[in-house]
This record gives sequence, C-alpha cells and structure tokens, in this order.
Amino acid sequence: MAKVSRCIAVDWGTTNRRAYALNAQGEVVDRLADGRGVLSIERNGFHAAVDEIRFALGDGLLLLAGMIGSNRGWVEAPYVDCPAGLDTLCAGLKFIDGSDAAIVPGVRIFTKWQADVMRGEEVQVLGAAAAGLIPETGLVCHPGTHSKWVLLGGGAIGSFRSVMTGELFALLKKHSILSEQLHAPVSPGASFLEGVGRSLSRCELTADLFTVRARGLLGELAPEDAAAFASGLLVGADLRIGLALAEEDHPIALVGDPHLTGLYAAALGEAGKTSTEVDGEQAFLAGIRLLLEKL
Amino acid sequence: MAKVSRCIAVDWGTTNRRAYALNAQGEVVDRLADGRGVLSIERNGFHAAVDEIRFALGDGLLLLAGMIGSNRGWVEAPYVDCPAGLDTLCAGLKFIDGSDAAIVPGVRIFTKWQADVMRGEEVQVLGAAAAGLIPETGLVCHPGTHSKWVLLGGGAIGSFRSVMTGELFALLKKHSILSEQLHAPVSPGASFLEGVGRSLSRCELTADLFTVRARGLLGELAPEDAAAFASGLLVGADLRIGLALAEEDHPIALVGDPHLTGLYAAALGEAGKTSTEVDGEQAFLAGIRLLLEKL
Repeated sequence: MAKVSRCIAVDWGTTNRRAYALNAQGEVVDRLADGRGVLSIERNGFHAAVDEIRFALGDGLLLLAGMIGSNRGWVEAPYVDCPAGLDTLCAGLKFIDGSDAAIVPGVRIFTKWQADVMRGEEVQVLGAAAAGLIPETGLVCHPGTHSKWVLLGGGAIGSFRSVMTGELFALLKKHSILSEQLHAPVSPGASFLEGVGRSLSRCELTADLFTVRARGLLGELAPEDAAAFASGLLVGADLRIGLALAEEDHPIALVGDPHLTGLYAAALGEAGKTSTEVDGEQAFLAGIRLLLEKL
Repeated sequence: MAKVSRCIAVDWGTTNRRAYALNAQGEVVDRLADGRGVLSIERNGFHAAVDEIRFALGDGLLLLAGMIGSNRGWVEAPYVDCPAGLDTLCAGLKFIDGSDAAIVPGVRIFTKWQADVMRGEEVQVLGAAAAGLIPETGLVCHPGTHSKWVLLGGGAIGSFRSVMTGELFALLKKHSILSEQLHAPVSPGASFLEGVGRSLSRCELTADLFTVRARGLLGELAPEDAAAFASGLLVGADLRIGLALAEEDHPIALVGDPHLTGLYAAALGEAGKTSTEVDGEQAFLAGIRLLLEKL
C-alpha cells in the first residue's frame, strides 16, 4: 500500500454488504457486515448508506466492489472487457467527485456468441490468483446467487459464464409449489449427490425438479432430504455448464462462501473432479490489497 | 347421460376454477369462471366455496376434477395408476357422503425409475382421445404451470412426465432479477423461436436464462423481446424432455389453453414437428360427458 494509508473496502452485493477497515499494512482492524444489500436501499438512499459505513469504520479511501457499481447502485462504474486482470480493474476504477471513494468496475464479455456480466466476483477471483491462493491459469467457480465459472489465463479473466443456480433455488424455496419441502438445511450427503448425479447424466432439470413434489406426495422422498436433492439437481446442472468451459485437465478452484464451496467440492467429486477451496473473504481482501498497491 | 339428468362439472385447479352446468343432453346451459383456485381457499373454506357454485349453477351431480381432489383441496381422492383410461377414472370416483358430489381421481406413475402425478389434465386428455379429437395412440402435451407430456396407448394414459415450465416462468417474472424484463406479452415470434432453438440444441438453460439480464444490460436484447426469449428457452427445454418420451413418428397433439397450445405448436415447428391443437375446455367437456355416460 504505497500511497493509501488507510482504506475501507466494501464487498457490496445484492443482498448483503461486508466492509473492512484496513490499516497501512493492509491488516483488517475493524469490520461491519449486514443485510443492507443494494436491493434493500432506495435509489436515493445510497449517500446515507455510505455514511453508515463511514460512521462505523472511519476515514480513508472507500473502495467499493459489487452491485453497488451497477445501474441499481450508488454510482454506475462501466464494465471492463475480457481479458481483464487486476491492472484492468485498477485502470477502470471510477472515482467519485467530492468523496474519498472509488468503485471497482464490473467485467463483461460481449461477443456475437456470448453476453455476460459480473460485479464483485472479479476482485475475489483475481485477488486469489494474484496472491497465489489458486493457479493463475485454470477454471474457477464462484458459487452463489448467480454462480460464475471463470476461465483464468495468466492471472486474467479470459472468459466466464453465469448460472442462475442460487437464485432459482431461492425462488423455489420461497415461492413455488415445492416451497414447503425445501426448508431443511442442504448438506452434501446422499440426497444432494443423487440430485447432482442425475443432472450430470441427463438434461431434464425442469422435469426432475417436479419429481421433488411427486416423490414427496408418493412417500418416496423424505421431507428432510428434499431440499438437498433439489439443490443437487441445480448444482449438477451448474457443473455441467461450467465444466464444459475448460479442458479436461485444467485445475479447478472454488472461491466464495465456505458452505457453498463445500457443496460444490462434493458435487465436483461426484463428477470425478478434484478441486481446491478458497474462502471468498480472504480472496476479496487479497484482491483489495493488490489493487491498493497499484494505485 | 343415462342416469344423470343434470350435472355441474368443475375443472378446479390451483389458481382458477371453471364450472359448467350441463343439461340431460350434455349441453352447457350455464357457466362460472373465477380465480377461486384451490390455493386461494382456506383449508376449512371448501364447503362455502362449493356452495358458491351450487348457488350460481343450481342442483345436479357435482363432478369435480383437478387439485380440488388433492391433499390441499376439499376431499382427497386417491390417485389411480397408469395405464389409466376413462373406465379407470370412473371406477376411482370418490363420492362424498351427504353431498350429491364426486371427485375425479388424479393419475400417478410410480415405479423404481419414475414418480409423477397429475390432477385435472387426465379428464381433458382422455376426453379428447375418446371423443376422437386426438388420436387414441400418440404423444399429447398439456402445456401449463406444470406441463404434462402424456403417452397415450389405445385411449389410455400409459405414461407421462411433468415439467415445471409455467411455474418457473411465473417465478422469474414475479420475483427474480429478470422480473422487470419479463412483462411484455409472449408471442411465437423470432425471439421466442430463438429461445426455443437454443434450448433444443444445448443443455444450458440455467445459464441461458441469465443471458436475458446480461444481453439486456448490454443493449443486445430489446425490452419487448426479453419475455418471449425467456419463455422460448423454457419451452424449448420442455419440448426436449417431452419429445424424448415418444417414437419419432408418433402423432403429437396439444390440449389446453389456446394461447399456450399456439406457443407450443410454434415451438414444435422449430423442432421440425407438426401437431394438432385442441381447446382444453372442449376436451374437458368431452371427458365429463363420457364419464357421465359410464355412471
């Protein structure tokens, strides 16, 4: 951290925000985490929401990543194109007039054949690679609301694909005819792996999801297993899409929430793949420290 | 109609109910349609909900089909097993003590490899076949909240598969990150067929759905086309599953809501298949008339 003596870094997503105060050595000296994600804040409420962070964590450069830089966030930071490394993100930082604050750009891929966007995961994935937590070339999965499968080449994001796995599971759990069946916690046991295996071996997700109801009604799926089986079906479909992006022998890294990377590691095992897991918080802080060095 | 001089037939689903008063000749002499589906009625409110129909349409045997016979309806009518014809439905009628009323059973398939259930569509599909509106042997699709693909053999349901197409589209439209993009009406034009073609040619539905957002953000998908494209993706995946049930040369019939059968007919055209369409109301009334003859 050459020029920045103190920094507040924020991973500000759709449903949550996590803020960290870093000292001049890049150590976390204070933190805040709450449910004040972008969608919970009125369009004209972002100044106040930023002030809450200032009030809690103090002065210093405010570095914001995630959906906060989207058209639904505070100030829109344009996307940078693939291939995108940390230098690309640094060059694309959007400094906000009158505030000691900058927003990390999202990354897009936009070709005749492919259109995709990410905001927030890029800091984690590029940070993990630059800090040596994962290989600089390989396949990375960041599981979540919209899982991201990233092809890294030489420490830069070469290409990526988003899959709506987490959001679809949440929709089914909250609002669908399966709702009452999906409230048990999801663990990577036999039911989860049965769902994964089914989606890996055949392309019938939207029918297989209905079997959760039919098997439940007919007494063939225990109430405590239904959520894991349904999650497994969605994760299996996710893997099938993600694994198709890379060569057979690419190393696979999982970066993100430890509960989710654990589920995906088990699912990858079902597909005969090994993987390494990196905590998303550790990866985010690594990315932020490296961005600060480049300022 | 040998023994029944007057009948009130009700197609009572999850979200809607449609009731028809039939005279001794089986002609519709009065009708009622409203949004009082099973899920809108309290568990102890079904007597009152039935009385509303009696009050509007008068006396006679009340013949009820659909989710009204489920564990969330008025009185549960056990499922009958496949193969199931109109005789099977008739033998499984659940007469309700103290009321001049009977509930048509649902149909289930429950083997080591398959578990599935339907309630309501069986009257339409078997009615259409027995009345000569569709072939007695072939593949029938009843598109909807939970689309049903039925293999008919000799006028009986031999096997079937449910696909959550309509429900998933409704969830995405009402509650997802795509919500704001999905409010245009869906017509079987170029965007719809592009979605159908994509899902027919590759198994990446949960990723392709996210491209609706990415392409929208990047200006590559017009707001008025997004709903049709997303619907096409789901319908294409539905077709892929349904078509795998039958031999290549089976005739394909579509029974149900005319807007939906129109969409599916266009989608089947994209898959190189011809199909015939039958209005679900006409099919339901045909099924009811034939059941009444068997009483």
